[in-house]
Amino acid sequence: MLVDIVLDAMGSDKAPEPELRGAILACRHLPVRIHLVGPEDKIRPALRAHLKGENLPIEIVHASEWISMDDKAASSVRSKKDSSMRVGLKLVREGKARGFVTAGNTGAAMATAKMVLGALNGVDRPALATILPTGAGTPCVLLDVGANVDSDPQNLVQFALMGQIYARSVLGIAKPRVGLLSIGEEDSKGNAMTKETLPLLRELPINFIGNVEGRDLFQNNVDVVVCDGFVGNVTIKTIEGLAKLISDELRQALKATITSQVGALLSRRAFKDFKRRLDYSEYGGAPLLGVQGACIIGHGSSNERAIMNAIRVAVQFAQADVSRHIEAALKPRDPGPLPPFNEVKADPFRDDNGLIPPAA
Amino acid sequence: MLVDIVLDAMGSDKAPEPELRGAILACRHLPVRIHLVGPEDKIRPALRAHLKGENLPIEIVHASEWISMDDKAASSVRSKKDSSMRVGLKLVREGKARGFVTAGNTGAAMATAKMVLGALNGVDRPALATILPTGAGTPCVLLDVGANVDSDPQNLVQFALMGQIYARSVLGIAKPRVGLLSIGEEDSKGNAMTKETLPLLRELPINFIGNVEGRDLFQNNVDVVVCDGFVGNVTIKTIEGLAKLISDELRQALKATITSQVGALLSRRAFKDFKRRLDYSEYGGAPLLGVQGACIIGHGSSNERAIMNAIRVAVQFAQADVSRHIEAALKPRDPGPLPPFNEVKADPFRDDNGLIPPAA
Repeated sequence: MLVDIVLDAMGSDKAPEPELRGAILACRHLPVRIHLVGPEDKIRPALRAHLKGENLPIEIVHASEWISMDDKAASSVRSKKDSSMRVGLKLVREGKARGFVTAGNTGAAMATAKMVLGALNGVDRPALATILPTGAGTPCVLLDVGANVDSDPQNLVQFALMGQIYARSVLGIAKPRVGLLSIGEEDSKGNAMTKETLPLLRELPINFIGNVEGRDLFQNNVDVVVCDGFVGNVTIKTIEGLAKLISDELRQALKATITSQVGALLSRRAFKDFKRRLDYSEYGGAPLLGVQGACIIGHGSSNERAIMNAIRVAVQFAQADVSRHIEAALKPRDPGPLPPFNEVKADPFRDDNGLIPPAA
Repeated sequence: MLVDIVLDAMGSDKAPEPELRGAILACRHLPVRIHLVGPEDKIRPALRAHLKGENLPIEIVHASEWISMDDKAASSVRSKKDSSMRVGLKLVREGKARGFVTAGNTGAAMATAKMVLGALNGVDRPALATILPTGAGTPCVLLDVGANVDSDPQNLVQFALMGQIYARSVLGIAKPRVGLLSIGEEDSKGNAMTKETLPLLRELPINFIGNVEGRDLFQNNVDVVVCDGFVGNVTIKTIEGLAKLISDELRQALKATITSQVGALLSRRAFKDFKRRLDYSEYGGAPLLGVQGACIIGHGSSNERAIMNAIRVAVQFAQADVSRHIEAALKPRDPGPLPPFNEVKADPFRDDNGLIPPAA
């Protein structure tokens, strides 16, 4: 059975090209029906040209406006009532689709999703999670990375519960190790907020391993790391900045002499592998946890593979019924019958290294 | 005239080897007299072996104990009354030396320095600054990175003043651009603390450029970045973790095939340049700003060049009288005659790239 997923056709920096190609890739590889939202006059001819007669379950839904990366989140959400984000998210709210994917303006996507979908029962604050690569190939989930600014310990407790459910359902980690981002491993290390949060996390029915530090994000010591949205946002932007600096410097150094250019040429495959192992677009974008339905926000620079991976995550999110699990965890007295966790480690779209092999 | 600097001989992971070699390098290249503090029976024969009869201004000061990386900061500061850190810092307090350098336990060094040296007049909280490499070769100063945990807006104001004085005096940046670490450039972006701090920073007689983000640390957009010690510590540990992951992954990828090994061999010089440009030990360790005298804390993995660079920073710190400038800035009504800022961009120990050339 096909899972219905909405794709914002107008999100990425180069929209709608990566979205069109990504939708086609996804339909070829995944059990999905795509609802492609954007200006029909622009999308339909482009899609037809890409499909070249191939019959795939892609439907176009018209939206006359879209939100750009430069638009202010708050005002664009208010003023652009027919934006592709808003129209797309309404389809999820109305039950016509189970998840929404965009590579657009993160602030606007979060604000629109909170407004249109609303929070799940028991969730005070939805949280944006990001998936970081580690050396071992198993990713690490960091949240909140910016859905909120000032959080309290109770919010962090909810982030921990939501993060571990995501790690179980979508990343297939049976018993995710959950850590609290702080400045030392000992319980005594931390600021007023982490010290208040630590004992609350110890009481939860999760595999809580205590405080972790910034360096643990990359060492496969921990699967889910919880922090407030300010710290999380500074952290991911620092990661982005350093990764860019290192890659720029490396490129420049390798261009400096003919010898090193030849060297770089010979190592081309190695560099490609290296980049791929550290490419977070492989992990399919940032899920906004705690809203009604799957909402996956990709990077503005997403290519077609990143779009396909974000769609894959939305499908897994819907199939594992992450939202229901979150509601059950946050309202433990009223769980009702739940679908089983998808605890299968082997993912048909990943190779032995935990990576998604290039599309055929 | 020689500047007297104390060097903790027992700080680094491989102490005292890097310290001995670093002290010798420093004495050969800098106008410095080193007071080497540690167990005399261990240090004296090793130093004699390294000097091979060369006559350099290095004096040994006996200390029977030392603090290891595994020692808890608070308890070791109390219990080890004759530690090399404590003995060394006392020499600075007594005016026998103008600065102190250690590559030892950061927590213990900060606690001992605060206790033995005390804070400068007008300084509520000393702050630890770290010097990050940027693509342009001009470093960026980030503070506080862990001298404090919970800070208030007034503390951040003092950090900004101290950071800009350090950037002027030691890094030779005439008009450092100072930014507040936040989650967006607009004034409206940030948490309760940054929003309260922002207008206070605007009132200071500094070149304040407003909010900056994590990625700006590496883009040569800003020279001094201010944050609370919790956020700063998470940030530098994240940087450390990611840099290690990337270098490990790159090494592994380049070893994967014979072709890539040959490629890596040809690019050896490029890799070396690349590493050196991003090596923060080139910038000479983290200064603890706001205590009476220079206190420079290097990384535990410091090699002899890192030790020499930390000594160089301590010398510049003393020569430019950074402490007096800080007191003047924080108590503007009682400045007294001040030495001029050292605003010379050209540093005899740096090449055109702003890097310190390898020792002869």
